[in-house]
Amino acid sequence: MQHFDSDYMEGAHPLILERLAEINMNKMPGYGTDDICKSAADKIRKACACPEAEVFFMVGGTQTNATVIGSALRSFEGVIAAKTGHIAVHEAGAIEHGGHKVITLDHSEGKLEAEAVKNYMEGFFGDDTHPHMVQPAMVYISHPTEYGTLYTKAELEALREICGRYNLMLYLDGARMGYGLGAESTDVDLKVIAENCDIFYIGGTKVGALFGEAVVIKKPNTIPHFFTLTKQFGAMPAKGWLLGTQFDVLFTDGLYLSLGKHAVGLAMKLKNAFIEKGYKIFIDSPTNQQFVVLENEKMEELSKKVSFGFWEKYDENHTVVRFATSWATKEEDIDSLIEML
Amino acid sequence: MQHFDSDYMEGAHPLILERLAEINMNKMPGYGTDDICKSAADKIRKACACPEAEVFFMVGGTQTNATVIGSALRSFEGVIAAKTGHIAVHEAGAIEHGGHKVITLDHSEGKLEAEAVKNYMEGFFGDDTHPHMVQPAMVYISHPTEYGTLYTKAELEALREICGRYNLMLYLDGARMGYGLGAESTDVDLKVIAENCDIFYIGGTKVGALFGEAVVIKKPNTIPHFFTLTKQFGAMPAKGWLLGTQFDVLFTDGLYLSLGKHAVGLAMKLKNAFIEKGYKIFIDSPTNQQFVVLENEKMEELSKKVSFGFWEKYDENHTVVRFATSWATKEEDIDSLIEML
Amino acid sequence: MQHFDSDYMEGAHPLILERLAEINMNKMPGYGTDDICKSAADKIRKACACPEAEVFFMVGGTQTNATVIGSALRSFEGVIAAKTGHIAVHEAGAIEHGGHKVITLDHSEGKLEAEAVKNYMEGFFGDDTHPHMVQPAMVYISHPTEYGTLYTKAELEALREICGRYNLMLYLDGARMGYGLGAESTDVDLKVIAENCDIFYIGGTKVGALFGEAVVIKKPNTIPHFFTLTKQFGAMPAKGWLLGTQFDVLFTDGLYLSLGKHAVGLAMKLKNAFIEKGYKIFIDSPTNQQFVVLENEKMEELSKKVSFGFWEKYDENHTVVRFATSWATKEEDIDSLIEML
Amino acid sequence: MQHFDSDYMEGAHPLILERLAEINMNKMPGYGTDDICKSAADKIRKACACPEAEVFFMVGGTQTNATVIGSALRSFEGVIAAKTGHIAVHEAGAIEHGGHKVITLDHSEGKLEAEAVKNYMEGFFGDDTHPHMVQPAMVYISHPTEYGTLYTKAELEALREICGRYNLMLYLDGARMGYGLGAESTDVDLKVIAENCDIFYIGGTKVGALFGEAVVIKKPNTIPHFFTLTKQFGAMPAKGWLLGTQFDVLFTDGLYLSLGKHAVGLAMKLKNAFIEKGYKIFIDSPTNQQFVVLENEKMEELSKKVSFGFWEKYDENHTVVRFATSWATKEEDIDSLIEML
Repeated sequence: MQHFDSDYMEGAHPLILERLAEINMNKMPGYGTDDICKSAADKIRKACACPEAEVFFMVGGTQTNATVIGSALRSFEGVIAAKTGHIAVHEAGAIEHGGHKVITLDHSEGKLEAEAVKNYMEGFFGDDTHPHMVQPAMVYISHPTEYGTLYTKAELEALREICGRYNLMLYLDGARMGYGLGAESTDVDLKVIAENCDIFYIGGTKVGALFGEAVVIKKPNTIPHFFTLTKQFGAMPAKGWLLGTQFDVLFTDGLYLSLGKHAVGLAMKLKNAFIEKGYKIFIDSPTNQQFVVLENEKMEELSKKVSFGFWEKYDENHTVVRFATSWATKEEDIDSLIEML
Repeated sequence: MQHFDSDYMEGAHPLILERLAEINMNKMPGYGTDDICKSAADKIRKACACPEAEVFFMVGGTQTNATVIGSALRSFEGVIAAKTGHIAVHEAGAIEHGGHKVITLDHSEGKLEAEAVKNYMEGFFGDDTHPHMVQPAMVYISHPTEYGTLYTKAELEALREICGRYNLMLYLDGARMGYGLGAESTDVDLKVIAENCDIFYIGGTKVGALFGEAVVIKKPNTIPHFFTLTKQFGAMPAKGWLLGTQFDVLFTDGLYLSLGKHAVGLAMKLKNAFIEKGYKIFIDSPTNQQFVVLENEKMEELSKKVSFGFWEKYDENHTVVRFATSWATKEEDIDSLIEML
Repeated sequence: MQHFDSDYMEGAHPLILERLAEINMNKMPGYGTDDICKSAADKIRKACACPEAEVFFMVGGTQTNATVIGSALRSFEGVIAAKTGHIAVHEAGAIEHGGHKVITLDHSEGKLEAEAVKNYMEGFFGDDTHPHMVQPAMVYISHPTEYGTLYTKAELEALREICGRYNLMLYLDGARMGYGLGAESTDVDLKVIAENCDIFYIGGTKVGALFGEAVVIKKPNTIPHFFTLTKQFGAMPAKGWLLGTQFDVLFTDGLYLSLGKHAVGLAMKLKNAFIEKGYKIFIDSPTNQQFVVLENEKMEELSKKVSFGFWEKYDENHTVVRFATSWATKEEDIDSLIEML
Repeated sequence: MQHFDSDYMEGAHPLILERLAEINMNKMPGYGTDDICKSAADKIRKACACPEAEVFFMVGGTQTNATVIGSALRSFEGVIAAKTGHIAVHEAGAIEHGGHKVITLDHSEGKLEAEAVKNYMEGFFGDDTHPHMVQPAMVYISHPTEYGTLYTKAELEALREICGRYNLMLYLDGARMGYGLGAESTDVDLKVIAENCDIFYIGGTKVGALFGEAVVIKKPNTIPHFFTLTKQFGAMPAKGWLLGTQFDVLFTDGLYLSLGKHAVGLAMKLKNAFIEKGYKIFIDSPTNQQFVVLENEKMEELSKKVSFGFWEKYDENHTVVRFATSWATKEEDIDSLIEML
């Protein structure tokens, strides 16, 4: 049985396990105050060309989104997101639990367009009753999106421009960032992200780490007392060095990027096979998630040998399914999958 | 200058002021434990044909919605509302501040259709990831809606049926309920509302009271410790009898209904005048709010002599405006407005 | 039966009822944007010698405390209060519901001493683990306190000094402020309060108004977007002018102060009678609340003719009870009470 | 340099690292739905003699406390804790951030006595104003406590009895539970804990795991929709099997208990050395944390060669310090420390 259900099915890249084993019995200070966390943060700052940025390590994506958004916003403020955004759908109301409205706008293949934000903000300030409404203060995007799509540099800059005009923070959820950075023709690298976003996180859980997300706050003190806030949100691990170590390895010798490229390369091979064999591609994703329309019969047949994700019903006889590769996928697995198509 | 901006521009019906003056120096126990509150609650229970219902008096609409919804839902639960619902737009995120997501669905002239709720719930349970999502536990509607429209008895029953099927509470915001009950051809009276809703409130602030809303919880203990919860939400007035007195007067000799009928009668007169004079009616509202399309020139001309609400742009040359009558509107005011059309 | 249970048993001073009746049918804009609210705010600013202060009108004390404190604090911040403070005990956790810890310190007859705050803050910053703790950001006091006691000018200045040193806001709950201002030998007037506090409220509900509290924020924009926040907390009445009108009357011709003096004068008469007749005074209160130790037999006998508040058990045979006078108490009521002692 | 600062300075027991490495490239389903989590849960249920219990795995202590308490309580409810309780002091207000008051009572060497809870509850219901107060619904204790002390079986039963009488849940924070279970003369084992507590967690982070806490809910559905709630609180790791695996190893062949015994054995050796050498023991702790009074000169001298925790000032010339052993402490480290005393 082959598994393409998701990109968080395996543990960690062997170099990470090795390093964790090496330092296992070292005595380390707690709460991310250790030297490995410092080293990892330095490497991330360098990769982002943000020498002043604050870097915090957290355990998972929902936790990170809830902590960052809940900490950055004041009580009367809300966050704008695409209707399909992870915070809008699949975090069990974590943002609202923290007291904030997720203001959802229409999307384009999972992407929030600058134009949509602009229209919302113009309508907002054009409405005399807006002091009775939640004040938008942040824009949330993910890169790659839930649909595996990517923003271009120009699109990020357009969002940046609108955010600047309306005093909105731009926050990027990079749970799968490695698979965006590793895409073939993307013009968005970590520096472009850091130039355009106020806060973002670099996902480890889905890209080679056992677990862990690295939050980058470009301008220090954007969120005052963030250390205390991470404690309040239950997002401060006692053994912060477990996280620091993993990112230290991932940001050594370009490992993070190369893991991303590996997964994307295999995803492109699979996508091309789908196209060659006449399958309908549901969304043209340049990253590790591939969305394909399968005849229901074919889907059932395949599901006996391969596991994948159900996405949505396409029509009476067809279904959209998702195949996800990861840093751990082997070329032979892809090859044998292609043979079954 | 005539004013048709809203229905909360005046104080209270003279009978209420008289009664408040009469008992002004009486010594009353606090927190709604007095006999006048009991009397008012009894009259409301009788009018609703709900002999067991709990009745609580609160000060304003947003406070009432925040308190009821925030108290009724558990942390993981959300409330379904029309996109145009007051809680979704004009309460500054009070529901989210209480920790709950407002799940917004499309509407039909301000109304939430049973079919829309059914489709949402089917999709919800049809999605394997729903345990990662906010669990819908309540449906919020308003009657009249933000557009002045009314549910029919059949529509309420259809919502009730769907709510029953999916174990959702049905909560009705009756900020303008009097103007719904007083509509000419409605088949929805208080008993129909009580039969179909689990919780609702009868609006006083906009219908003859200085201020005040009466919350009716049909089945006792639907919200355990609701007394304490109203305190926690800042919704328990020390002098509860101020509220009880007003509702006691409103529910004596059918005053509440007659105030509603008065306002609706004048609104119908105005609507007919608009139609006769060839104006386009934007929404066919049977209640005290009338939405009309005005040429921009006409709008400017009128606005020198009459005040009304801007609703939305219709096209380059036209605007939708709202004229609201109230229990306090005089026939002569309507007549002189009609002359200006 | 005479009633001395509390100071919120009656309606409003007749001048307020008269004024409300006079303007009852005037058409007023909503949400406190009317001219009467402006006039009332101006009078309050003048009385406080704070020409720049923001003034907001709310309905009740718990609502006001929850809204002010919840709006002023950020997520990681808490408020320091006496253990006996209203927010610490009798608001059903409204402050915690808004997400904030009430840090309780020992008190002296209901008063929070500057020394206690200083010691707490020194200990806090002396503890290396303080980044893992709630960050104190505000000091809450009430004047008069729950025990009817008053701060002196020097005590307020000492608190102010400590608050300045540790960057704490000083917030004063003046639910019964009139009965403090009207005390015989107090050196604290509204100007002294305004000089030393960042935010405070002037209580109307217990001092001559039907209901209503006037929040004074000395430095504009201390709480950004407070208008929207009051909406979010359910604390923005549609008919703000109902509140503005009452404070406009209370702050005309010194009515507020004279109501306070009236109640305190009668309370002093009662207190002296207690002392003369050999009763033990539990707390030496200079305001409208008098705490006396009664023999249980005497208490039962009295309670057949007079109602009063049970405070606490004193010993096996004695009980502490509270007699409260108000702006509405008549001298003859006090005289007949004295006769019964 | 020897380090006795805390018990979370090292990674994981080698058997855990080995097992994680073994299964590293296995493809596992997410969110704790895998077979290893099931196996670990079964072993825990068996160790607790609770065949029906629900077991959930979370990452850290504050997260676990916030999630369990915030999920179990309704809006109007609070949790009783010792003043020194972790949730009352060192979780940055995480419980209040979730909307709940921590009601703090006096303690006895870190322990909350049944008598203290009883007195509070009697006072609460004896006070007529209690409907205006936070309703106590849970008792929080930790075992071992912040001071390393342990409840006896009789003490737990006494708490259980009071909790039953007043319908309070009993929740036990077992961040260091292994060091309690491993104490020499304790009569409290996992079964005793499970018999007396409604919910508790077994700490892994400090007792041999890389990270992780296992929450045991004795009676299924005590917290409805707890799966969704853990998501909302950001406490549901995508790779739940990372946690399950660690607990599966810890609960195989009695490893968890033996790690606890190891640390406690060395702590006792150290404690006896302190006593023999004439040091004053600050608290008689039977667990891995030892609190000793050092002369300041001695403290400074020692601190050049050994690190330990500052606890509190004892007097002008003495300080209370904490030495913590752990599952990873070596006997030779203790021996060389003893030599320095």
